[in-house]
Amino acid sequence: MNVYGEHYRTIWIKQDDTAVIQIIDQRHLPHKFVVEALPSVDDVARAIKEMHVRGAGLIGAAAGYGMYLAALHAPPDSFMDRLTADGEKLKGTRPTAVNLEWAVNRQLEAVQAVNGDAKTKIQAAFDTAQTIADEDAEFCRRIGQHGVSLIEEISRRKHGETVNILTHCNAGWLAFVDYGTATAPIYAAHDKGIHIHVWVDETRPRNQGARLTAWELGQHGVPHTVIADNVGGHLMQHGLVDMIITGSDRTTYTGDVGNKIGTYLKALAAYDNNIPFYTALPSSTFDWVMRDGVKEMPIEQRDAAEVHTIRGGHEGTIKAVRLTPQDSPAANYAFDVTPARLVTGLITERGICRANEDSILNLFPEKRQRYKEEGVKLTTFLTSPRGNQ
Amino acid sequence: MNVYGEHYRTIWIKQDDTAVIQIIDQRHLPHKFVVEALPSVDDVARAIKEMHVRGAGLIGAAAGYGMYLAALHAPPDSFMDRLTADGEKLKGTRPTAVNLEWAVNRQLEAVQAVNGDAKTKIQAAFDTAQTIADEDAEFCRRIGQHGVSLIEEISRRKHGETVNILTHCNAGWLAFVDYGTATAPIYAAHDKGIHIHVWVDETRPRNQGARLTAWELGQHGVPHTVIADNVGGHLMQHGLVDMIITGSDRTTYTGDVGNKIGTYLKALAAYDNNIPFYTALPSSTFDWVMRDGVKEMPIEQRDAAEVHTIRGGHEGTIKAVRLTPQDSPAANYAFDVTPARLVTGLITERGICRANEDSILNLFPEKRQRYKEEGVKLTTFLTSPRGNQ
Repeated sequence: MNVYGEHYRTIWIKQDDTAVIQIIDQRHLPHKFVVEALPSVDDVARAIKEMHVRGAGLIGAAAGYGMYLAALHAPPDSFMDRLTADGEKLKGTRPTAVNLEWAVNRQLEAVQAVNGDAKTKIQAAFDTAQTIADEDAEFCRRIGQHGVSLIEEISRRKHGETVNILTHCNAGWLAFVDYGTATAPIYAAHDKGIHIHVWVDETRPRNQGARLTAWELGQHGVPHTVIADNVGGHLMQHGLVDMIITGSDRTTYTGDVGNKIGTYLKALAAYDNNIPFYTALPSSTFDWVMRDGVKEMPIEQRDAAEVHTIRGGHEGTIKAVRLTPQDSPAANYAFDVTPARLVTGLITERGICRANEDSILNLFPEKRQRYKEEGVKLTTFLTSPRGNQ
Repeated sequence: MNVYGEHYRTIWIKQDDTAVIQIIDQRHLPHKFVVEALPSVDDVARAIKEMHVRGAGLIGAAAGYGMYLAALHAPPDSFMDRLTADGEKLKGTRPTAVNLEWAVNRQLEAVQAVNGDAKTKIQAAFDTAQTIADEDAEFCRRIGQHGVSLIEEISRRKHGETVNILTHCNAGWLAFVDYGTATAPIYAAHDKGIHIHVWVDETRPRNQGARLTAWELGQHGVPHTVIADNVGGHLMQHGLVDMIITGSDRTTYTGDVGNKIGTYLKALAAYDNNIPFYTALPSSTFDWVMRDGVKEMPIEQRDAAEVHTIRGGHEGTIKAVRLTPQDSPAANYAFDVTPARLVTGLITERGICRANEDSILNLFPEKRQRYKEEGVKLTTFLTSPRGNQ
């Protein structure tokens, strides 16, 4: 999407013969726009580990490009050994990011499948890296094309008046290669000239909404307003929200949505006020094993320091300030689960479905097929690589 | 309640012949405990205006004490003129604080009712100031005595296991003279030796929970954990909350509760998970005119700066850091309304009632009586001075 009027992806190869990967270093947002050059796989590993890049799709793409750099600099006499070692290094940067392992393995398989010299293998790694990034962008673009129909429908019903959309956290293009998931229908609508306005939940404790979603919407010219996470219910009671779109970190095949902590509260308010609540997700985030999200989904507890202190801009630098008494404990649950009964629908790259087993399997019939063929219970399906961490 | 093991009120007269008012300067909490001396009515006015003191009950008490200082220093030849002028000055410090006007007028009436010299009138002002403060503390104490029965019941049902209570914002003793409202049953339970633990919503954007509620619970020795406002729903889904107690800024006679923004979201989650949701309030916060809180209650919109920046401790001082992009707008709705259907009960100084017209009027029959006598619709009742701002 656009930054200062120019189109960017979150990661790309420099268009000259230096073969350097470039990323938006997201640690400085929204205070500074910094493009960082990553000349080696070690630099890519550091950028993932220290969260210069974050978000499921982007982490996968970064790993893909990292493996290309690994191939480029691997000594010909120990090419595959070095590539495998570098792959392990990348996998270790964020152990819970499923996309990381998936992208590294895809690269190793692609390179191994090639018969030829190092140069041919390097070309295969390059192609695979580009494909991983392009696929991520393309899936998000399709989510946008399907989701925009929902916004258009509301816009028609409102006779062209502004459609107010609430979103939580950052399921924006900064978390992927381009477009984002929750934001993809929003950008598509904006680019079509539909009048929209986005309520951006700040999303404590890490404030991804206030820092990232607000920044990317602003850069692309989408009207928006940042609100504290407490505000959405009041807005919904007063007709100021027409729909909600969030992302998903993991979605059960029964339609329960695991997403950033606080999503469930917004879904409750949407339900109470008869407002549609949609989740946008690449199908890679479906968990084809899990039946009951609330009961079964493991919820990460992060460092209490994220609650105690908050980072923000102060006189040109980023400073952390303390919010709580020195002796007060804090708890930091990172995700919650919104039961399917509160979810109006799922916007995927294949289309929109209801948040229930039948509707999901109608959109992904190969999962049903497999169920029939293998004669196993659906709950024994293998998981796909998941899209979000 | 206790601070560093010693009992404090939020406001008191120094126990010597200097007749100086002392307050806890709450702007420094939770980072520093500062007691400030206010020797004149102008100092009291400044302390209210600049929010050294805040919270309904405490603002009323401060105005009462301020009027005593006004009387003490008024020239005998223009005693009442000066007192009236100082009263106007106090009323102007926070124009929407109903308690302010109520306390000033109570003082003016008390002083005018006395026949005698300035010394007698000063004594009347002193007595009235103490009475206002004592009444505030006594009402809160009674709320605690009634509310503790609810906690005891849960404790019994859990065979003495820890009772987990969630609260939002600061309806603690720091907002009153002592005990608080939502916290009064909590302190009463703790002082009785019942095992309790409090989940403290940080309460963005002004973080009254993280700054004030956490501090006062910690000082009094009550086990507690600070959480982001997004977390409560997840905790309730997983059986980690036994009850919710919040305060109220305005309660309709039909049981709708106007309170800090975000309260409604917690009430929805409580309802969804079958967890009791109680509101603790002095009856002065009842609005005997308003029937439909969601439709009729005016909701203050505060400065967007409170969303854009946040203040916290940094290397011994308090600094504000910027959270949002420079060009992003923010909205700052300060309160929301929880419909009566989501409220399990109201804890008042007279006892506990259901959140509906009949149950409320059974507890306050004089309001019903007045309705019968005057033959007017309940919706034309005069309002009481409200307890919270």
